[in-house]
Amino acid sequence: MRPKEIVLEEVEKPKPKPNEVLIEVKYCGICGSDIHAYHGVHPFIKPPIVLGHEFSGVISELGGDVEELKIGQRVVVEPLLTCGKCLNCKLGYYNRCIVMKVIGAQTDGAFAEYISVPAHRVIAIPDEVSFKHGALVEPLAVAVHAVKRAGPLGGLNVAVLGAGPIGLLTASVAKRYGANEVLITDLSDYKLKVAKSLGIDYTVNVKREDPVKVAKEIFGHEGVDVIFECVGSNPVTIAQAINMARKGATIVVVGVFKEEVPIKVGLIQDRELELKGTAVYRFKDFLDAIELLKRGDVLAGQLISRVFSLRELEKAFKYIEENRDTTIKVLIKVT
Amino acid sequence: MRPKEIVLEEVEKPKPKPNEVLIEVKYCGICGSDIHAYHGVHPFIKPPIVLGHEFSGVISELGGDVEELKIGQRVVVEPLLTCGKCLNCKLGYYNRCIVMKVIGAQTDGAFAEYISVPAHRVIAIPDEVSFKHGALVEPLAVAVHAVKRAGPLGGLNVAVLGAGPIGLLTASVAKRYGANEVLITDLSDYKLKVAKSLGIDYTVNVKREDPVKVAKEIFGHEGVDVIFECVGSNPVTIAQAINMARKGATIVVVGVFKEEVPIKVGLIQDRELELKGTAVYRFKDFLDAIELLKRGDVLAGQLISRVFSLRELEKAFKYIEENRDTTIKVLIKVT
Amino acid sequence: MRPKEIVLEEVEKPKPKPNEVLIEVKYCGICGSDIHAYHGVHPFIKPPIVLGHEFSGVISELGGDVEELKIGQRVVVEPLLTCGKCLNCKLGYYNRCIVMKVIGAQTDGAFAEYISVPAHRVIAIPDEVSFKHGALVEPLAVAVHAVKRAGPLGGLNVAVLGAGPIGLLTASVAKRYGANEVLITDLSDYKLKVAKSLGIDYTVNVKREDPVKVAKEIFGHEGVDVIFECVGSNPVTIAQAINMARKGATIVVVGVFKEEVPIKVGLIQDRELELKGTAVYRFKDFLDAIELLKRGDVLAGQLISRVFSLRELEKAFKYIEENRDTTIKVLIKVT
Amino acid sequence: MRPKEIVLEEVEKPKPKPNEVLIEVKYCGICGSDIHAYHGVHPFIKPPIVLGHEFSGVISELGGDVEELKIGQRVVVEPLLTCGKCLNCKLGYYNRCIVMKVIGAQTDGAFAEYISVPAHRVIAIPDEVSFKHGALVEPLAVAVHAVKRAGPLGGLNVAVLGAGPIGLLTASVAKRYGANEVLITDLSDYKLKVAKSLGIDYTVNVKREDPVKVAKEIFGHEGVDVIFECVGSNPVTIAQAINMARKGATIVVVGVFKEEVPIKVGLIQDRELELKGTAVYRFKDFLDAIELLKRGDVLAGQLISRVFSLRELEKAFKYIEENRDTTIKVLIKVT
Repeated sequence: MRPKEIVLEEVEKPKPKPNEVLIEVKYCGICGSDIHAYHGVHPFIKPPIVLGHEFSGVISELGGDVEELKIGQRVVVEPLLTCGKCLNCKLGYYNRCIVMKVIGAQTDGAFAEYISVPAHRVIAIPDEVSFKHGALVEPLAVAVHAVKRAGPLGGLNVAVLGAGPIGLLTASVAKRYGANEVLITDLSDYKLKVAKSLGIDYTVNVKREDPVKVAKEIFGHEGVDVIFECVGSNPVTIAQAINMARKGATIVVVGVFKEEVPIKVGLIQDRELELKGTAVYRFKDFLDAIELLKRGDVLAGQLISRVFSLRELEKAFKYIEENRDTTIKVLIKVT
Repeated sequence: MRPKEIVLEEVEKPKPKPNEVLIEVKYCGICGSDIHAYHGVHPFIKPPIVLGHEFSGVISELGGDVEELKIGQRVVVEPLLTCGKCLNCKLGYYNRCIVMKVIGAQTDGAFAEYISVPAHRVIAIPDEVSFKHGALVEPLAVAVHAVKRAGPLGGLNVAVLGAGPIGLLTASVAKRYGANEVLITDLSDYKLKVAKSLGIDYTVNVKREDPVKVAKEIFGHEGVDVIFECVGSNPVTIAQAINMARKGATIVVVGVFKEEVPIKVGLIQDRELELKGTAVYRFKDFLDAIELLKRGDVLAGQLISRVFSLRELEKAFKYIEENRDTTIKVLIKVT
Repeated sequence: MRPKEIVLEEVEKPKPKPNEVLIEVKYCGICGSDIHAYHGVHPFIKPPIVLGHEFSGVISELGGDVEELKIGQRVVVEPLLTCGKCLNCKLGYYNRCIVMKVIGAQTDGAFAEYISVPAHRVIAIPDEVSFKHGALVEPLAVAVHAVKRAGPLGGLNVAVLGAGPIGLLTASVAKRYGANEVLITDLSDYKLKVAKSLGIDYTVNVKREDPVKVAKEIFGHEGVDVIFECVGSNPVTIAQAINMARKGATIVVVGVFKEEVPIKVGLIQDRELELKGTAVYRFKDFLDAIELLKRGDVLAGQLISRVFSLRELEKAFKYIEENRDTTIKVLIKVT
Repeated sequence: MRPKEIVLEEVEKPKPKPNEVLIEVKYCGICGSDIHAYHGVHPFIKPPIVLGHEFSGVISELGGDVEELKIGQRVVVEPLLTCGKCLNCKLGYYNRCIVMKVIGAQTDGAFAEYISVPAHRVIAIPDEVSFKHGALVEPLAVAVHAVKRAGPLGGLNVAVLGAGPIGLLTASVAKRYGANEVLITDLSDYKLKVAKSLGIDYTVNVKREDPVKVAKEIFGHEGVDVIFECVGSNPVTIAQAINMARKGATIVVVGVFKEEVPIKVGLIQDRELELKGTAVYRFKDFLDAIELLKRGDVLAGQLISRVFSLRELEKAFKYIEENRDTTIKVLIKVT
């Protein structure tokens, strides 16, 4: 397939194998990685493939040996296929499985009416979480996991670099999980306005202001306690993170980087910084994301810029491309 | 002063101020940073200065208000001058003081018969620790601090990149503090032989073997649990550390880096690695280093390549320069 | 002196020694330990003594060598006198000083117009924090410290046993620092109503309901993630805490216990519980408490039941005694 | 069945179900809980039952769907039957499974020639670990898990109360995993002599000396950093642990307690102690125990007091009963 080629076709309804359940997809969000795949520049996603891994739905059929779930349940899915046999899997860190695949990235995903998934990755959602909000559980779980990676935030000041969906959710969760004050940066005034509507304390448009300077003005010249890099693929934000970091600070790398980036390792050493990666999520992060939505603690609805139908999938991708600065999260209403 | 210029001159015996004690120096080790200063390439050390911060001695005189110490005590010194007022100092993390100075680097040091130091940085050593071994407490405390930064090591496999004094001590402490097996790398067969004599399990000469390949052969293809970078100033060892790391591994940066280094941040993110800096030490690290020497748990004596007198200081520096591959730690017998 | 004997007398204005500052006291709260001392049943407080350790004020005079503070500054005080020499002090854990004294408990306190205190325990408060609220910083710092002792709370469910001032503040901080939902118990409907006004999710009056049963109904039969015991001096709440705890839960003991209490240690072992003590606070806890008040994140004002003048001190103690069920925090307006 | 009644009978060779493997048992140790069951006083073990959960053996037959193992492999078994569905199981903490059963305690165990067990709980042992030593992996994994529960031990002083098999192994692992010095207590000089042969630094016979006093003489009056209670079922050792604890110390409860024990909770609170339970082990603890045996880091062979054949099982139990003071671990050679 060529880049930007999207084909809608009728395929056979999948049949759940033992320990799988068939899900009728309700809503599925478009993720940054879907957009990279659409442009043919994603390193791991090889078309042709059905994309889509941020989804809600209803259980439509149970495969053999499935006991804990039942037809008709409203659910979301942790879209991870893990081996269960490597050391990380055996220790419960299955998000570090050495042969992990992501549904909708290495196998067919949820821009489809039906998808069959492992039963042990399916999680019921309560009535208070709509199917629409349910499609936000996956990116919110990414944010929950990233925030937990930073350690306890009670009383600490936080900077989030990048106000895309993950940056906005990370900032919101950081605040809810104890951060004293949160500053967020971006190039788009629109996205920073959404940040304000989510309750983020300070916004910095990096086109107009130096985020390192502003962060130190606000939080003091000793620097910021915890920084989340949520942009990826460029050396600028990593340098900003290191330069605004307090001695002893933690920097969590949430953004995706393809190339090597020049880093002042000497500052990491001398200032006793910690640079930590964060990769997807685990079960409890999904539970916690659902609770945050159920209680309205994270106003995730503010992130939904537009909803398209499955027939409009191509239009949705084009819309995002043409409205980068004013688009945060686009959902596909599948059924 | 010109690089490599060393002058011996008589100066007045210092007088301890209130809360200081005057120490008659016994032994003082030559550190890598002293050698950089000798060559005039150290970024922070500005000659003329009396170098020397790894020392043992005897208390010779007490300044005013000093109550806990007494004349004649055998001691070592944490050579840190800290403000006590920045947040890190107030929280007890004084090795992260934002205006910290190091005795013998930013103020006159211990290649001198007498030095006056803050009383609260002076620590008594027991009879079992000779003055000669006492001069090793400071570098051993660096290793103790670095190992603690990695978190608990019980059952974990460890790689140490670089078998200089700090690398050798870090490997020894890692083993004593619980590492299952420890591998160490270097370019010098001599240093790797010393590693063996210290009880390090595996040695790799990177001139002949690929340390990433060897580490995975020994510890399994999933990779190494904890890596200590103890070389500094080059991009190769950081890349080795990342490439041999298990998903979820910790990399502690002990080596000193002056320039930016290109790093695969994408692997840090995707594999949930932690890249942590470590800077000098705190009080408990000194206590623990003294215990390790006292009990013979770390055979630090193996590291002493040569001892010179204070009059031979210049000769000592030249010796190191001419015998890099076979010199680990050189001590100056001061008085 | 006899129990319940309170004498108001003119004493000489204290003179600050070197490294001390004289503070003109504005407001000072009455703590549970003050009440125990008033009744002559406190194990450590020996009258005659000036009580009072929860106070705000203005710097009135500087002792020698004080540089960081200035006359007229609005301040609060960490009322801890610590040795600086025991291991815990040297490691920065000065709240675990082995010879710690508390101002207003082992030395004269702040139910007095002036008090001289160590300069390094004095912390400025911003204009947004009134003197009245400033008197709440100390108990709030107790709560902040207790909550941090529990580890990260993001996504966890919490029960607080006891809705006195410390219980209410602990519940509020737990929520602000990430707890998913917080349940609080007490015997007084009035205090539970105040809990509701502070945003605590669930209240249980233990006169009418079994808190273990209710906690499991709300949070699920596997039990509660984190429990704070804020009652003290009785075996019932410890047993409740253990019985409602999830396997792997943390129980923080905030309440003060004088006698031995029978405990099912077998359940602590088998369920891998952690029973942790918490004692006063450290510097950062004070800073964080001030931030919580400044931002209005904890509605501490709701806790102030009555304010009396210093002349009415005896009346204030009697008021508390006669209105236990409807009194949370009583303040003395000193000057 | 009556207490102390042991019957040897021929039963049918079990048939492994899908995802199970049949093991031919080689050696199986007698655990304290087996002895309690033998006396009919174990709270959970209900005869008639085949006891035995500390065993090594050879894979004799594979059930359906077992792919990772093969017939003839030398193995040990984590004897835990867990649900995989409760929150603790989902989070990887399966030793906290809310419905966990132990093979040989709630289901038939390994005092039998064959036993069928879940394949995912079977772990291969290398040639360096004999079948005899293999039977010690399970109790050693208990010790490994207990030591990890204490957090990093590097540089800390440790007391172990009780020199039974678990106490001796815990002391050995604590030392190997970084403890500076380890003191162990018991009533039996014989067991304390074995402790010495394992390299434990100090021994205290509590019949002759007060362990609290001795611990403070050795480690200083501020107290011990970490204490492991390995006796159980009595209030004395818990009180000793609390009384010898440094402010901020950790106490790990390894011993089994059936009754309530009176505890000075006030000291736990005031001294910021942590009292932590430890229950069995997880996968990595087994791997680590195998490594410790393979490398000879823990001289577990010293613990084996006697070996009996399966026909002599009754004699073995009687032997233990009659030689309590001089018996540490008794093994049954099964096939």
